[in-house]
Amino acid sequence: MSEAKRAGGRPRDPDNDTAILQAALELLIERGADGASIEQVAKRAGVARLTVYRRFANKEELLIKAVETARTIAAPRLAELASLSVEELVEAWALAMAQPGARNLLARLLGTLPDNPRLFGTYWEAYIEPRRAIFAVVVERERDAGRLPADTDPELFQDTVAGTLFYRLMVNPVEVTVDQMRDYLRAVLHQLGYRADPTATVPRRRDPQAE
Amino acid sequence: MSEAKRAGGRPRDPDNDTAILQAALELLIERGADGASIEQVAKRAGVARLTVYRRFANKEELLIKAVETARTIAAPRLAELASLSVEELVEAWALAMAQPGARNLLARLLGTLPDNPRLFGTYWEAYIEPRRAIFAVVVERERDAGRLPADTDPELFQDTVAGTLFYRLMVNPVEVTVDQMRDYLRAVLHQLGYRADPTATVPRRRDPQAE
Repeated sequence: MSEAKRAGGRPRDPDNDTAILQAALELLIERGADGASIEQVAKRAGVARLTVYRRFANKEELLIKAVETARTIAAPRLAELASLSVEELVEAWALAMAQPGARNLLARLLGTLPDNPRLFGTYWEAYIEPRRAIFAVVVERERDAGRLPADTDPELFQDTVAGTLFYRLMVNPVEVTVDQMRDYLRAVLHQLGYRADPTATVPRRRDPQAE
Repeated sequence: MSEAKRAGGRPRDPDNDTAILQAALELLIERGADGASIEQVAKRAGVARLTVYRRFANKEELLIKAVETARTIAAPRLAELASLSVEELVEAWALAMAQPGARNLLARLLGTLPDNPRLFGTYWEAYIEPRRAIFAVVVERERDAGRLPADTDPELFQDTVAGTLFYRLMVNPVEVTVDQMRDYLRAVLHQLGYRADPTATVPRRRDPQAE
């Protein structure tokens, strides 16, 4: 497949890139990973199969890029993440979670775990790990500013926020609006000890001098 | 199918019940809901298809009972839940999460959401809702005893704990031991403000008189 990817001398049509990724995303949401074959993706995108193979080494790479495309529509760019305020992050997350198809996309992605754990593993390493590294810096910044409890663990904090949002999105079959997700997110952060105004907060540590 | 369920006058063999539920659970974990047909379940359980239909109105009911069977192997009975200490609950959850197949079972169950949301919805109403109602009482008990922050919301608290455990179980591809899950659970509860010894804790509320 790597030959196919390198074959051909014509310049790539960026419209094809967009059409292929959009078709892959739609098929993944509608039919799951099994139903999103290179053949079906090419058909829906209106391109030849070889056009898909030229761009993506295999189906796994195609689906990972498609998932990531969906994320970046609503989410801020990686380089911007660290400089966003918590309010801006809440806004971005609320928008992303309220996207139509967000729930089914997540369910399809997690549904691939038993048969193809490598797909999610690769996605995790390529896209989630780098985001988590940046969010860890954000959590440390908020903690050091006294807006999060002094004993907040950045990794665990991220597991908690992401996990709670996954749970809310997947187990509750009611459609969620951006407003509802924003309120929910704020409540989750509050429960984890986040206070926008740290001067109004009694620290949770036993020893106040450690703050 | 309801006729089939009511047909036949012979007493039911409880060994068949166990074999059918075990076969359904195994096939659900191995192949997903699509691969766990009544026919395949009957074949693996070594019984006739009619024997399965006599017991379960349809495949959905069979799979829901199979999932619930897996849960009750490790988890305490519903009637006992409310009287357990947090330490005992942590132990039960750690055991349940470290069961072989727990990760794939959860992924398979969530994987059914896009194509068959009714399956999870029915499971939620029949088994998760009643458990949540009892856990809400436990959360209130711990909160009133001062072991959880005074502003803890029982519903949100449950979303957070369950969501974080789902996330830990599914996204981290490393096998987890009971010891690791127990430590992780304790860290999650600590982050949510749980303190086994409330006298050592500074309350998080702004107004200490509200405690």
